[in-house]
Amino acid sequence: MDHFFKVKSLEEVMALADDFSPVGVEAIFVSDAFSRVLAKDLVAQKDMPGFKRATMDGYAVTAQSTFGASESSPAWLDIAGTVLMGEVPDTIVLKSGQAVKISTGGMLPKGADSVVMVEHTQLIDENCVEVYKSVAPLQHVIDASEDFAKQDRVLSKGIFIRPQEAGLAAGLGFSQIQAYKIPKVGIISTGDEIIPIDQEPGPGKIRDINSYSLSGFIKEAFAIPVTYGIVKDDPDALKKAVEKALGETDMVLISGGSSVGTRDYTVEVLSSLPDTQILVHGMSISPGKPTILARVGKKPVWGLPGQVVSAMVVLKIVVVPFLNRLKGLKNLNPFTRIQAKLTRNVSSAQGRRDFVMVELISQDNQMLAKPILGKSGLIKTMIRADGLLEINDNVEGLEKNTITDVILL
Amino acid sequence: MDHFFKVKSLEEVMALADDFSPVGVEAIFVSDAFSRVLAKDLVAQKDMPGFKRATMDGYAVTAQSTFGASESSPAWLDIAGTVLMGEVPDTIVLKSGQAVKISTGGMLPKGADSVVMVEHTQLIDENCVEVYKSVAPLQHVIDASEDFAKQDRVLSKGIFIRPQEAGLAAGLGFSQIQAYKIPKVGIISTGDEIIPIDQEPGPGKIRDINSYSLSGFIKEAFAIPVTYGIVKDDPDALKKAVEKALGETDMVLISGGSSVGTRDYTVEVLSSLPDTQILVHGMSISPGKPTILARVGKKPVWGLPGQVVSAMVVLKIVVVPFLNRLKGLKNLNPFTRIQAKLTRNVSSAQGRRDFVMVELISQDNQMLAKPILGKSGLIKTMIRADGLLEINDNVEGLEKNTITDVILL
Repeated sequence: MDHFFKVKSLEEVMALADDFSPVGVEAIFVSDAFSRVLAKDLVAQKDMPGFKRATMDGYAVTAQSTFGASESSPAWLDIAGTVLMGEVPDTIVLKSGQAVKISTGGMLPKGADSVVMVEHTQLIDENCVEVYKSVAPLQHVIDASEDFAKQDRVLSKGIFIRPQEAGLAAGLGFSQIQAYKIPKVGIISTGDEIIPIDQEPGPGKIRDINSYSLSGFIKEAFAIPVTYGIVKDDPDALKKAVEKALGETDMVLISGGSSVGTRDYTVEVLSSLPDTQILVHGMSISPGKPTILARVGKKPVWGLPGQVVSAMVVLKIVVVPFLNRLKGLKNLNPFTRIQAKLTRNVSSAQGRRDFVMVELISQDNQMLAKPILGKSGLIKTMIRADGLLEINDNVEGLEKNTITDVILL
Repeated sequence: MDHFFKVKSLEEVMALADDFSPVGVEAIFVSDAFSRVLAKDLVAQKDMPGFKRATMDGYAVTAQSTFGASESSPAWLDIAGTVLMGEVPDTIVLKSGQAVKISTGGMLPKGADSVVMVEHTQLIDENCVEVYKSVAPLQHVIDASEDFAKQDRVLSKGIFIRPQEAGLAAGLGFSQIQAYKIPKVGIISTGDEIIPIDQEPGPGKIRDINSYSLSGFIKEAFAIPVTYGIVKDDPDALKKAVEKALGETDMVLISGGSSVGTRDYTVEVLSSLPDTQILVHGMSISPGKPTILARVGKKPVWGLPGQVVSAMVVLKIVVVPFLNRLKGLKNLNPFTRIQAKLTRNVSSAQGRRDFVMVELISQDNQMLAKPILGKSGLIKTMIRADGLLEINDNVEGLEKNTITDVILL
């Protein structure tokens, strides 16, 4: 079988995301909208709030009646009534020189165009209030269509729905919305050395970590992990497991078996599946070089390094953006990056994108990135790490005190 | 009833978190550990990995056999066998001048102390390999207790369990762990002007946004929201709803009814409950001044501003840290803060902590924080916002181009 190991850059791999599509669309209740991806623009059906609304407790007035008012020269206004919350003050038409008591959220009566904060008034008696500060028209008031006007596109297809977007959708009366379906991600651990976590590992064996850490990262990315256990280094068993996972999920991760070892069956097994293309066999990133990506039918299948820390880096840096594509997100790379100052020199190889685990330390109002030294294979490095430092292909390293971006872990 | 409106600072309010305790501890499967909080230190029961393990594909050797090896002067080593993955290479005792084929994750045979990467070798024939680069002892090898030694405390009580910690716990053989229970948070919307989202609001009415946005923020904080619908401005109805919510949840949020208006019943209702203390009635933050906190029995009950944007700010800044206390987290304030450069002057009042919504714009390798102007009451500001700028009590504002911390939303 002829598959040549030509490594691809991170950018080349990312460009392949266009080969894949979101997994589908469904109607969901807005109460379940948080963390979902909007699949159809939301357009306001009415103005919002739909009436002149007070944003402060105080008195609804005509702004003109307060012009020039100050501590030394207050305006005296006649109290013409009270607006009850949730009621239409239709018995009141406010005139110049009058004030109507109103609470935050109340509807301004006809004639009123602004609200004086209660803190800037002094009640003289039940009929009269002193105003110490002038207001401008629409001050402390939201106009009828000021938040959103009828036909405004208020939320766009492809956005991640945060709590505030869920609230807005509810406020606009969308008790259901169209959302992209949540991708299911199949996870297969491979390797003769891997044993289930409830067994005691003898020498040479190690418990299955990747099924658990990768599941966690898939959950963190708001998708659904489905684990398929541990498969021995046996092409037939791996093929069966991959076929099963492909039948039940939208994307499959195989950890282990992707390096150029004698037991590298992953590419052979994938190539033997119908309608399959090996898109990536090797990436110019470190860790993560032996990464494999295949398209089987319409689904991406990844061969991730078996080494736990490498698998994590590839998942965060490469797989999650692809998952975002399947989720329908417009922005495939919404990593949270923060700027931090390097505490020491870090070397890197040209022509390779390096990801270095760092601890983040806040000191003197400055964020420091402290590279975690020691062997790349140690699991404890990923426990200590707060972030990943990305070192570009075209540099040989970064110098101490460089201000650089860190991807939060 | 005598409750005086003496505002507390953010720090004073935060200090009150010590009055509350985590909601309890339970055993959970490690497969469910992501996003939970560890309730008991995890201590390694054995060394990890427990044997000398290769971190690269290549040849296990004695480092000494490679000393001085280079491109121009390679070392020739005899191939003494192959380590199979997951097997104990107990038939091999490696001597100086010998090499044993090994894959990443394989167990080093007796006598071997390091691994030469396959990339630095050339196979001469089936019995001999050329090595072009020397290795040091333990290079490309993880020693038996190098990741964790028996009795090491590997994870501490009170940490948030990320995917990598879940993986490590699994790798150590903890199929179950002790975790703090997930708090349930009751959410009550109040106000005569609030109507359910599936109804058409007439003038003066507005749909219930807070039940949905606050639920989303509670989910985002990995807790469980329980909504109790809309309660009219009626003390008896509110009391009933609060009692019900307190019976079923660990913390209660009441949005609306907390400002100094005629319809402010929240404090009265809370004060009428047995074993209750009003801890906070007013905070020196903006938005969010009218915030109420009561301790009813052992549970916190919050009165949040009804105004949607204010409620969101109080939830993020004040309520989530308290929720973290109930969750058992050691670090109550794990906000993600990033540094950004202000695009314009922002004014603020002394003696008050101001939170200003900002958009974050990445430009020329610099993050810019662009304050969102316009009225604080507008919902669209919270949709546009990427973060909250925090302006300290003791300044009158921040100048354009100041580098400042932004709390991500």
